[in-house]
Amino acid sequence: MPDETRRPRVVIVGSGFGGLACARRLNRQPVDVILLDQHNYHLFTPLLYQVATGLLNPADIAYPLRTVFRHSPNVRFRQATVAGVDLAGKTVQVRGGAPVAYDYLVLATGSTDNYFGNQEIAEVSLGLKVLPDATRLRNHVLSCLERADAEVNTDVRRALLTFVIVGGGPTGVESSGALAELMEIVAGKDYHQISRSEIRIVLVEGLPRLLSAFSEHLGRYAQRVLERRGVDVRLKALVKAADEHGVTLSDQTSIPCRTIVWSAGVRPNDPTGTPSVPRFRNARIKVDGWLRIPGATGAYAIGDVASPEVGDQRQLPMLSPPAMQAGRYVARAIVDHVRGVTVQRGPFHYVDKGTMATIGRNAGVTHLPGGLEFTGFLGWLTWLFVHIYYLIGFRNRISALGSWAWDYLRHDRPIRIILATGVEPEQAPSVASGSTRKMG
Amino acid sequence: MPDETRRPRVVIVGSGFGGLACARRLNRQPVDVILLDQHNYHLFTPLLYQVATGLLNPADIAYPLRTVFRHSPNVRFRQATVAGVDLAGKTVQVRGGAPVAYDYLVLATGSTDNYFGNQEIAEVSLGLKVLPDATRLRNHVLSCLERADAEVNTDVRRALLTFVIVGGGPTGVESSGALAELMEIVAGKDYHQISRSEIRIVLVEGLPRLLSAFSEHLGRYAQRVLERRGVDVRLKALVKAADEHGVTLSDQTSIPCRTIVWSAGVRPNDPTGTPSVPRFRNARIKVDGWLRIPGATGAYAIGDVASPEVGDQRQLPMLSPPAMQAGRYVARAIVDHVRGVTVQRGPFHYVDKGTMATIGRNAGVTHLPGGLEFTGFLGWLTWLFVHIYYLIGFRNRISALGSWAWDYLRHDRPIRIILATGVEPEQAPSVASGSTRKMG
Repeated sequence: MPDETRRPRVVIVGSGFGGLACARRLNRQPVDVILLDQHNYHLFTPLLYQVATGLLNPADIAYPLRTVFRHSPNVRFRQATVAGVDLAGKTVQVRGGAPVAYDYLVLATGSTDNYFGNQEIAEVSLGLKVLPDATRLRNHVLSCLERADAEVNTDVRRALLTFVIVGGGPTGVESSGALAELMEIVAGKDYHQISRSEIRIVLVEGLPRLLSAFSEHLGRYAQRVLERRGVDVRLKALVKAADEHGVTLSDQTSIPCRTIVWSAGVRPNDPTGTPSVPRFRNARIKVDGWLRIPGATGAYAIGDVASPEVGDQRQLPMLSPPAMQAGRYVARAIVDHVRGVTVQRGPFHYVDKGTMATIGRNAGVTHLPGGLEFTGFLGWLTWLFVHIYYLIGFRNRISALGSWAWDYLRHDRPIRIILATGVEPEQAPSVASGSTRKMG
Repeated sequence: MPDETRRPRVVIVGSGFGGLACARRLNRQPVDVILLDQHNYHLFTPLLYQVATGLLNPADIAYPLRTVFRHSPNVRFRQATVAGVDLAGKTVQVRGGAPVAYDYLVLATGSTDNYFGNQEIAEVSLGLKVLPDATRLRNHVLSCLERADAEVNTDVRRALLTFVIVGGGPTGVESSGALAELMEIVAGKDYHQISRSEIRIVLVEGLPRLLSAFSEHLGRYAQRVLERRGVDVRLKALVKAADEHGVTLSDQTSIPCRTIVWSAGVRPNDPTGTPSVPRFRNARIKVDGWLRIPGATGAYAIGDVASPEVGDQRQLPMLSPPAMQAGRYVARAIVDHVRGVTVQRGPFHYVDKGTMATIGRNAGVTHLPGGLEFTGFLGWLTWLFVHIYYLIGFRNRISALGSWAWDYLRHDRPIRIILATGVEPEQAPSVASGSTRKMG
């Protein structure tokens, strides 16, 4: 049994699906857990696009982390921006604070948008990875409609009413479907002068079909549904350039627009910055079969930031289920180690329980591991129940379910407010700025 | 009967309680109405403090104006920032757009925080007048708790946990009560290291009692309830100076703090900028008994921005009921004029139906015009039903009622997320900035 007076400290960096699952599994285990995240909430990222399109409130998909661990005796959350990790010195550097030493590290820092080095595209695109992205996109889309309504120049008006979504994976498919539904609700109604036919939603995908992680059948189905709902699907097309006037595709088509939503790629958020750590070509940390960072004692990496080699140079998918399973696996491995269990646990094995996406009202796709597939209403219903199940907190579930019922019955996306909450407290000309500067 | 081919145009500036009531009353009347506001929603300002303290979502108290007038044939909303009003030329200047000509003007631009010329206090204080104020205050208060939790310097920690509310009117009383309830919920629970006794909430009021618009009895009651809930009420005290380290009161007490909420005064938002218009000493436009701006044909002013002289140099209170009544009165007067009604309507008469405030759970004060007063549970219940009744939109009512029920039963303020949605689209490094610059 471990010495109760000095329990090993586990530092978990990141409170996404992987980090949170790990911290929850370590609750009431003989370790002290410090969970670090730059935000004070766990974010249910698969529903970001519903915040962006006015269906859900931000708080419906964000759950305060301190509340999750309110009754936990050994898990502490701390809001902090991690500036670096010293794998040799076993410390995590925190911006504006003292370094945090660890006995065990769980790196679960996820991923961020990848613009593949194209700074110009990065500057004019809106991502959809964090909560402020979603409210910013909502503000932006509604502002475009407001401006188009008052615009007399037809070219500018057309560009304001053109929305380009880049990337035909689940995020791109779900976002364009939801955007089409929003436009159906407001065009000709809230905006009397704007007809649905003037609004263009373009979904750009480099591969020959949508949803390449799913079967060809499901990809074609998603395309048919989107096209029926008025989305212009461009396959085998890449965005070559983008600026404030619009995008240029690889086939030289240029599309004047004021909105570019980027969902065409992610790259790992890796704070270690150590060249000695082995990495895949896409920059994910190449952990061993037990999810340990090679050469770093006590350090694990899970989720989007890392993968073991799975079979022939392949990786785990960058999705929430492998992250959650890995989080729980690592928690058990740490407890084994602390308890001095001598029989080593087998390597991590990801169990694929299926993947799903929704294209909109009554239309979803679900792929189950046995090869079973649902589309349409059944696919949509499965999506709905799985998402309700995984939302954290009773209130968030009730609130999201209420919003979805409202949308389903009333065909409404009610949260159509343009609300910029201003700069972050640290930068605001308020008392906060003073205190931060002093405390920094 | 008016000529149907050229209907008189009514321009309403501001969509608060007065402007909205006027626009609604002009629905389906023989005029074309243009409603201008810098925000795309009507804001239910009396509940801002509940957004600031994590009980309601911003969208619960903000209702999209286009949705209000979705089925209206003659009322059009336009999101625009009014830069000025030319009363002689009968046009409204709009930032980044062509001037809007009017036949009738209804100036309903409300009021903004008044720091009485003290720029230093203005810079370090947080107001509570618009929706971004409320989310900013929520972010700020929660950030102070996060920082205090990690702070080792006891002086800094104490300042981070001190919240000063300036002004003992309804906003100040309601804010300090709600803040005390929020602290009760999180201290020692979400924040294990912070005890309630370390947290100081100070309410500063210059007069000898709180709620001076109510009876002395109700003011004393509010004070007792607040003090019982741990609020330090300082009467006959003014804030003389404030900076990023804290405030100094008129009795030379200095209170180190990082949060100053300002609710000690408002001044009218007057875009006319014409010295020829008569004004009260507090800068409100002095309209005639029919709410017309003297010397300006077809121009009315209602709500916080203006008042007729009521009796002996007195003014209408700066509250929503007189604004709403004035909005409806002016709408009727305009329709009379358009229809060529020759018998002039009598001057505007404000009917006081009572005022109310809530100090928190089970504790409210209600004053009815006959001198009837309620306190405690009954005062709180009255407050609750009146506020539900006046919230716009079935969904907002359901959502607010649900949140209040949740709070009542669970003692919870669940929306404890720190969410800065970034700068406004116009300033963001996104596609929007390009389009705005081009369109400007």
